[in-house]
Amino acid sequence: MKNPVRSVVSRSSLKRLPLYLHLLEKLSAEGVARVSCTYIAKEFDFDPTQVRKDLEATGEVGTARIGFRVASLIGRVKELLGWNDTHDAYLVGVGNMGKALLGYRDFEKYGLRIVAAFDKDPQKIKSHVFGREILPMSTLLKVASKTPARIGIVTVPADQAQEAVDLLVVSGVKAIWNFAPAPIRIPRGVILENARLTRSLAVLTNNLVKKT
Amino acid sequence: MKNPVRSVVSRSSLKRLPLYLHLLEKLSAEGVARVSCTYIAKEFDFDPTQVRKDLEATGEVGTARIGFRVASLIGRVKELLGWNDTHDAYLVGVGNMGKALLGYRDFEKYGLRIVAAFDKDPQKIKSHVFGREILPMSTLLKVASKTPARIGIVTVPADQAQEAVDLLVVSGVKAIWNFAPAPIRIPRGVILENARLTRSLAVLTNNLVKKT
Repeated sequence: MKNPVRSVVSRSSLKRLPLYLHLLEKLSAEGVARVSCTYIAKEFDFDPTQVRKDLEATGEVGTARIGFRVASLIGRVKELLGWNDTHDAYLVGVGNMGKALLGYRDFEKYGLRIVAAFDKDPQKIKSHVFGREILPMSTLLKVASKTPARIGIVTVPADQAQEAVDLLVVSGVKAIWNFAPAPIRIPRGVILENARLTRSLAVLTNNLVKKT
Repeated sequence: MKNPVRSVVSRSSLKRLPLYLHLLEKLSAEGVARVSCTYIAKEFDFDPTQVRKDLEATGEVGTARIGFRVASLIGRVKELLGWNDTHDAYLVGVGNMGKALLGYRDFEKYGLRIVAAFDKDPQKIKSHVFGREILPMSTLLKVASKTPARIGIVTVPADQAQEAVDLLVVSGVKAIWNFAPAPIRIPRGVILENARLTRSLAVLTNNLVKKT
């Protein structure tokens, strides 16, 4: 194993790392060379001990009272997140969410490159979204045999999600990023990550009704 | 307090409730009248005890071996989530993510109604996105004095996020749903919920690099 710390980082730490990375890149652009956990903690209103623990999971060692080297820490955070590598992805389902993801230029910064987009709708096929041609779903396996990808992004309606996932799994993807609000079954060895807007909305609206 | 259980439900329970709701509505449409925790747990590969705890937080009481009444449970879950009420919202920033949210018809099901969309870009102002006219940011306070909203959805770039939030707070919104990858400061009493795609992507790509 190249980097043994990778296996011990918690899911909640992982979710905070993109935030730190964003701040570190801003500081780097401003010419700041060193940063302390206290500074980062203050910026996000987090507990400094938690920030220290999150950052130490990257393997980077800070110096007392001086802190971490910004440039070096950026590299370590990216490595832990897997954002130094490039991950090719297919996107299935070019509705509103699919279009938003196709247009999201920052993905390349995170190592995610959407190499092909598919849809079932004949109206959408052959049209272009952000300069990319939409391909028919029926060609996915053929495309995969020439241009394999490791991630499948699922932005189809809930009732078509399992079918899309099954096809992506057959095509050889190793991870599914699912945006459909449906329970998904995947074979052992394939990674499933659900990105659900409604989870975040649930917390917000529950808090709102509690206040009234 | 009308519903005292509201204050004890955990954030992680809240995040699972939209999933249950989706399944319950599917069952209801299929004419299923009763459902057990075991069935729901199996559907999502969750622990049945956890599902029971989540559902009991709604105040609904199940019957041993028979389970919960689907119709009644749907009502309770929606009440706990605040999705029985309608929450008017402004959306600020009509980029790709803003457009995707404007086009997301299911929000009405969750009680979220975007009543106005704003942007700074003169190219976008007066254009229509999903039948809605995009208004200039400078008119937000005027709009708010006539059509107040309780939620502000922020889909501007990171470096414009704080400014958008400040304006929304002045307009009187009680909750911010932030999609920008930036730390946000809000006054006490205003709810902040961050919806960050990169958090979910971080977990996925970290798992992917661990496997290789």
